[in-house]
Amino acid sequence: MLTGIDHVGIAVEDLDAAVERYRRTLGIEPSHREVVQSQGVEEVLFEVSDTSIQLIGALGPDTPVGRFLAKRGPGLHHLGLRVDDVASTLQALRTAGVPLIDESPRSGSRGTTIAFVHPTGMGGVLVELVEDAR
Amino acid sequence: MLTGIDHVGIAVEDLDAAVERYRRTLGIEPSHREVVQSQGVEEVLFEVSDTSIQLIGALGPDTPVGRFLAKRGPGLHHLGLRVDDVASTLQALRTAGVPLIDESPRSGSRGTTIAFVHPTGMGGVLVELVEDAR
Repeated sequence: MLTGIDHVGIAVEDLDAAVERYRRTLGIEPSHREVVQSQGVEEVLFEVSDTSIQLIGALGPDTPVGRFLAKRGPGLHHLGLRVDDVASTLQALRTAGVPLIDESPRSGSRGTTIAFVHPTGMGGVLVELVEDAR
Repeated sequence: MLTGIDHVGIAVEDLDAAVERYRRTLGIEPSHREVVQSQGVEEVLFEVSDTSIQLIGALGPDTPVGRFLAKRGPGLHHLGLRVDDVASTLQALRTAGVPLIDESPRSGSRGTTIAFVHPTGMGGVLVELVEDAR
């Protein structure tokens, strides 16, 4: 079941410069920073009310975000949807015929459990299902 | 001051089909539908916790969203940030040297007051400032 928007993921060329730009222009402070080797990214989160803005830098050009930046440039990258159970949500999507990137849940940042859904099934939007560690 | 993410805007080719896809795959129900002539769009909102997923269809090819769809295809389009005062936020961004699309606040859907900020100042993200009517 969908319980909220966990985060909006934004791909950036220069993570430190982007963090500084968001701090300065929106007056918000980063709440978390983490290298996620399994996804080839370094991410910085800004908590805003019940959700977060997530800036993501690529760890190299031959990573999913590196290839996204080369093809489309910086900007909105994916939508993180908070669900109470990633495994059962994946099963429901599979039953509905939605193509998945991750066939089973895996570890995300902040101790979360995640899975990516293929954009072709979600109207061009790369969706990340996020199950909170809390 | 930034108080939340008001909505995540997703450009779609076929609004009715996209609404049906989101209903069926995510189990969420639309909360609002509106034609916004001034922006050349029809939008459908799905409230999720404190924020919304906004599906936007173009009213024609020669509209901002129509041109976006022709160039990039369907997908994440803009980020709606909730602020307590659009006018003072615009002034702060102007002072910070951020390029604006709307130099002054205007009317949005749902009785909101809005203004768009140019993506070049926000790391490639089209940002819509949203001041709630409430």
